[in-house]
Amino acid sequence: MKAVGISIPRVDGAEKVAGQALYAGDLQLPGMACAKVLRSPLPHARIRRIDSTRAAALAGVVAILTRDNLNVAANSFGAYVRDQQILATDKVRYVGDMIAAVAAVEESIAEEAIKRIDVEYEELPAVYTIEEALSPGAPLVHEKLEGRKDPHYGRGGTHIVHEPSNICFHFRHQRADVEEGMRSSDFIFEDTFSFPSAQHYPMEPHVSVAQFDGETLSVWTASQSPFPVRQELARIFGLPFSAVRVIVPYVGGGYGAKSGIKTEGIAACLSRIAGRPVRLAFSAEETFKTICQPRAKMTIKTGVKKDGTFVARRCEVYLNGGAYANSGPSVTEKAGYRAHGPYRIPHVLTDSYSIYTNTVPAGAFRGFGGPQVAFAYETHIDMIAERLGIDSYEIRMKNLLARGESFAEGDTPIDCDLKAGLKRVAEAIGWESRDNAEENPATKKRGIGIATAVKDGGGTNKPANAAVKIFNDGSVLLSTGSVEVGQGMRTAFLQVVAEELSMPPEQIRVAALDTHYTPFDKGTNASSATSIMGQAVLKAARDARTQFLQAAAAVFRAGEQEIKLEDGRVICREQRLSFREVMQRYFRDTEGEIWGRGFFKVPRDDNVPLGYPSPFWEIGLGAAEVEVDSETGEVKILHYVSLTDAGKMIHPIQCHAQDEGAAVFGLGQALFEDLVYQDGQLLNGSLVDYRLPRFNDLPASLTTFIMEGGGGPGPYGAKGMGEGGILAVAPAVGNAVHNAIARRLQRVPLIPEMVWNAMNTVKGLTD
Amino acid sequence: MKAVGISIPRVDGAEKVAGQALYAGDLQLPGMACAKVLRSPLPHARIRRIDSTRAAALAGVVAILTRDNLNVAANSFGAYVRDQQILATDKVRYVGDMIAAVAAVEESIAEEAIKRIDVEYEELPAVYTIEEALSPGAPLVHEKLEGRKDPHYGRGGTHIVHEPSNICFHFRHQRADVEEGMRSSDFIFEDTFSFPSAQHYPMEPHVSVAQFDGETLSVWTASQSPFPVRQELARIFGLPFSAVRVIVPYVGGGYGAKSGIKTEGIAACLSRIAGRPVRLAFSAEETFKTICQPRAKMTIKTGVKKDGTFVARRCEVYLNGGAYANSGPSVTEKAGYRAHGPYRIPHVLTDSYSIYTNTVPAGAFRGFGGPQVAFAYETHIDMIAERLGIDSYEIRMKNLLARGESFAEGDTPIDCDLKAGLKRVAEAIGWESRDNAEENPATKKRGIGIATAVKDGGGTNKPANAAVKIFNDGSVLLSTGSVEVGQGMRTAFLQVVAEELSMPPEQIRVAALDTHYTPFDKGTNASSATSIMGQAVLKAARDARTQFLQAAAAVFRAGEQEIKLEDGRVICREQRLSFREVMQRYFRDTEGEIWGRGFFKVPRDDNVPLGYPSPFWEIGLGAAEVEVDSETGEVKILHYVSLTDAGKMIHPIQCHAQDEGAAVFGLGQALFEDLVYQDGQLLNGSLVDYRLPRFNDLPASLTTFIMEGGGGPGPYGAKGMGEGGILAVAPAVGNAVHNAIARRLQRVPLIPEMVWNAMNTVKGLTD
Repeated sequence: MKAVGISIPRVDGAEKVAGQALYAGDLQLPGMACAKVLRSPLPHARIRRIDSTRAAALAGVVAILTRDNLNVAANSFGAYVRDQQILATDKVRYVGDMIAAVAAVEESIAEEAIKRIDVEYEELPAVYTIEEALSPGAPLVHEKLEGRKDPHYGRGGTHIVHEPSNICFHFRHQRADVEEGMRSSDFIFEDTFSFPSAQHYPMEPHVSVAQFDGETLSVWTASQSPFPVRQELARIFGLPFSAVRVIVPYVGGGYGAKSGIKTEGIAACLSRIAGRPVRLAFSAEETFKTICQPRAKMTIKTGVKKDGTFVARRCEVYLNGGAYANSGPSVTEKAGYRAHGPYRIPHVLTDSYSIYTNTVPAGAFRGFGGPQVAFAYETHIDMIAERLGIDSYEIRMKNLLARGESFAEGDTPIDCDLKAGLKRVAEAIGWESRDNAEENPATKKRGIGIATAVKDGGGTNKPANAAVKIFNDGSVLLSTGSVEVGQGMRTAFLQVVAEELSMPPEQIRVAALDTHYTPFDKGTNASSATSIMGQAVLKAARDARTQFLQAAAAVFRAGEQEIKLEDGRVICREQRLSFREVMQRYFRDTEGEIWGRGFFKVPRDDNVPLGYPSPFWEIGLGAAEVEVDSETGEVKILHYVSLTDAGKMIHPIQCHAQDEGAAVFGLGQALFEDLVYQDGQLLNGSLVDYRLPRFNDLPASLTTFIMEGGGGPGPYGAKGMGEGGILAVAPAVGNAVHNAIARRLQRVPLIPEMVWNAMNTVKGLTD
Repeated sequence: MKAVGISIPRVDGAEKVAGQALYAGDLQLPGMACAKVLRSPLPHARIRRIDSTRAAALAGVVAILTRDNLNVAANSFGAYVRDQQILATDKVRYVGDMIAAVAAVEESIAEEAIKRIDVEYEELPAVYTIEEALSPGAPLVHEKLEGRKDPHYGRGGTHIVHEPSNICFHFRHQRADVEEGMRSSDFIFEDTFSFPSAQHYPMEPHVSVAQFDGETLSVWTASQSPFPVRQELARIFGLPFSAVRVIVPYVGGGYGAKSGIKTEGIAACLSRIAGRPVRLAFSAEETFKTICQPRAKMTIKTGVKKDGTFVARRCEVYLNGGAYANSGPSVTEKAGYRAHGPYRIPHVLTDSYSIYTNTVPAGAFRGFGGPQVAFAYETHIDMIAERLGIDSYEIRMKNLLARGESFAEGDTPIDCDLKAGLKRVAEAIGWESRDNAEENPATKKRGIGIATAVKDGGGTNKPANAAVKIFNDGSVLLSTGSVEVGQGMRTAFLQVVAEELSMPPEQIRVAALDTHYTPFDKGTNASSATSIMGQAVLKAARDARTQFLQAAAAVFRAGEQEIKLEDGRVICREQRLSFREVMQRYFRDTEGEIWGRGFFKVPRDDNVPLGYPSPFWEIGLGAAEVEVDSETGEVKILHYVSLTDAGKMIHPIQCHAQDEGAAVFGLGQALFEDLVYQDGQLLNGSLVDYRLPRFNDLPASLTTFIMEGGGGPGPYGAKGMGEGGILAVAPAVGNAVHNAIARRLQRVPLIPEMVWNAMNTVKGLTD
């Protein structure tokens, strides 16, 4: 292959480095007003009265939005439960819930106006933790749930509704008979784990510009899901899809935070009231109060044979979903489906819950529930190995699913060699030569840990559409609904088109994303861009190629099989023409064009109980060497080895960069990221207080291995990646810390205080 | 039919009446500069030196463009001859030729800067009239013609190149042997006619906004031909088509003036220099110096039998093309092809010339050369009838082509009943009861005249593409490259889509036109929108319908033949669903969409010498009753009857309005429109001096008859219209004036001075 498998310069590289790349926040429209929102200072309260008269009196204010004039067709929205409002109507449900918005000719005026809005609250008792939310008689975050829609994939599981309660969503996944499995086991071990709530922190906070132009609403937004945003806006405003344009320029990182409605609804309402374009840009602090990763509490009980063979596993996963469902139900289902890990276990029963609390709403986050459960099952497996006196590498090798084995009945079989991967990371970290986890007298204690995890990737039932247009001058325009969120998708797509059309990538450009014109897509998530959309891109390019070859055959008066495409030239017998020449001769002076269309969707087999199979398995294997400072409890990662399977690397450097980025995300959650609350108030919701990985937090050595197993549904066997690398970090690091200090910590982040306390207690399993 | 043939409210009516419809000139972009151009005060001169230092010193000037920094890839452009420059380089060729342009933060600054640009000229002898331009030793407007490309349709004619000379283009059309025909005739009559140069005067002058954004050039422009403009801009700037976006919002009238590059090249150059968006908006006065209708001098010699049967016709057509070719060659070819009129004439020889002069460039204008030659042949026929003592209605009926007869060998046969049409207009005007053209003593003299004309319509070899998208909510978006120039095309298209999808037109919208996304089209001209593009729209709607029926069949679990669409409902047996319900059930939760594609092109038959046949025959029949004031020479049209054939009226009120508008255009040219020069200076290039029809110029009675002969290639047999009505006005009015005053005027406009002079000379054929 000439264009694929090569690390060509990123197409968006130069303009991004030069600061020329345009983002939604760069858009300036004539007469554009700036908006600010008023947020609740209370975690749970009924709104008695909102008085905005003092704000309205401020010169420069062009629109005020509160529940009192929020006369849109449908105020509530939400992908799975319509539990969220554009602005709070009856209640506020967390500190940061939005109550009012103001658009003004200058941002400072909007800010001042916001301060002049008086709200009278009736404070209500609140719940913050899973335990509080589930305790009998707990106050309800939502008295009633409307517009409930379960995630669309059965996954061999069932959805159980509990109402009224704070259980937003409950998924059960079952295989064989877990009770019988436990009875036939030699040992049963049960452990409980906790995983933090992290902030996505994309460099670009949520921002959109909305403009009503007659009956058409145009919204420029930093969104990972332009088409679902269109759908929600159309419903909210009672507009047909044909009257809503969602335009997405470059997006400065998403990681799951930018799915669904965020700023768009408020900006559009204000624009309609003000009769001018309105921009609503959240600050980084507001992003902290918008969406986060769900905090998790997980219990795993495993029945094993003496030799370490797994027999049965019972999992209970509780995710703290915060005040609104968001994509929480989907995360909960995925977390539950994956909770038993990539192991051969005959009997499985998992219950997975999303719980409403009066905290920041939680939803999609890189890994989509995977990091939480992987931390649980990969720490648990080490604990089982220790209890049985088996090497934890060996117990993994014994139970790991082989390529071709089923993760769940009817689902896509495991599509790569996990054991080979584990062997590779173990060797790279020096597993054989590690010391036992014994108390050692050194101040700086070293340890080694490994972990293996998988997640089903590529989304479910995701249709991908792409269009490849060959213009009359031989230049090519690619159009897809995938969003360039920084992952390098545009470059990879151009490589695929270049490969299929046998032309240099420079001859190809990517069209701006506009839901009026761009073929439909469900969203840029689940590592689906290069893999799933990539296949649609490949098909569109092949369709264009077929049409082009027909045109060339007519021009050369030859058979199509006599035409060769090579490096942007069209060759027939002795003759060589450019694409331009062929196009212009074929279409004569009519300046015609060729449109190739591509559609791809992983096929559904109605006979399989699962519903929709997983497009591919995204894997994350990790090995860490850490150093723990026994005087401070500080954990330092000296060496980290990450391994994933790309199926086929379209752009190797970008693949490695994605895996590195994912590993660093995992590192943050393993060591220090966590949203800390006190009485419902987020204590560290700013970059001053919230600890993100910095350059000097990076391991001295960070290695990424990328397998090319060829097992994916993407172009040339490609699979999605970029989430896999996050999965194994926390358990690998936790296992390494145990190896170093001979203390088992069942929660992350491994903050120094907790580690020091563990080191200074009697040896045993803490937490 | 439920949606077609009905005058539904115009989709753009409300927003246009309310002033909300947006035009290119309404666009405001952040940092946008305004441009002004410097125009030549001399008709013909070599440019010695351009000094813009005083302009550059002016605060607020952001870019200056002259030949000295016009370093674009290709400065010259032109559809048929690349004889025009973005700005004049070596010479200026008419008063108004553009020499320099300035962009500044305010328009007034740009205007001031323009005044500060000093140009040193070396004046050259000039030619203004056809006679001057063709006289031996005449100065050449262009010393050399480059990039010559003949119009693409042979039309049974040949192109003859004369170089070096002021003949820009020469077309010859021949049938049988005209000399032999003359020899076998009983009489031979030869007459010469003149037709004025008119201004299109669209309400919206030429305007565009250009923006270079990185390597992509976006241009918002008031253009009838967005795709050809893209092609020219791509060539000029050396950009691939994929890097040029031409976006066309509503256009405030075109009439042929807005084809090809006008303001776009300068705006784009200035934008590149200034690094910001630049708007160049011409004033109405500048529009007068940009493009006009070619002035014509025509001689027709006809050989007839005693009974009035035509035997042979020799035509010579000279069009004053002004300083640049523009679309003049195509107009010249069409004028030549049609010069013998819609009559059965065995022997024809026509020579048609486009002549360069040092006047405003001439090009496409409503009627495309048709009004000029129709005035000639329809006045000529009355003069022949008078000489032979035959009723001029009868001589027409004797020689008119019947439906199915050929206008020229291999071309589409006449597709409607011209004789029935002529009978109808003659009856409506009261032909039978008219007085003879005798000198009568009344001060106010009344007369009646008729005329019959045709033009080949729909363009030639014009490929039309359309896309119809059914969104997941059942709303429909139509995308075509046709421009809404005020003709009501959007409404007609929606009716066609509504008819084909059996849904209310309100459910359908039209997408904004953007060459990046919109399927290719050659331009909105030649009455081709409803007819040719309309057929592509119909096909796209049918394609979408087919796909939708398949989806509905799957939803109902029924055969496609069991599904009926009716008033936006989908009916199968007893069940009724909305489009939305079918879409959502078929695509389940995936929010899919259906794309229908339509392509239409009148097929070319390679075996026919003609090349490309005419898609249809656009007809214009007129009958006028006039009153001439013998004291002032003023001509007043009391009653005008216009008749055309729509094939099938999609929107009857719009059809009548188009025909009325065309007739009023013709009225202006018959009575007073003319661009008057003195020493190369246009004397009446403003609305103060140029006389356009006003409301009180309208006839007291204006009737439009529209036949529905069903013979067109458009949807349901529709043909194009909107140009036909202009063709017959000048000859019908001239013939009526002759009937009133017994004086023959062989030129229009019939200005009072000329009419008074004719009335006060001895009776005879003037001019």
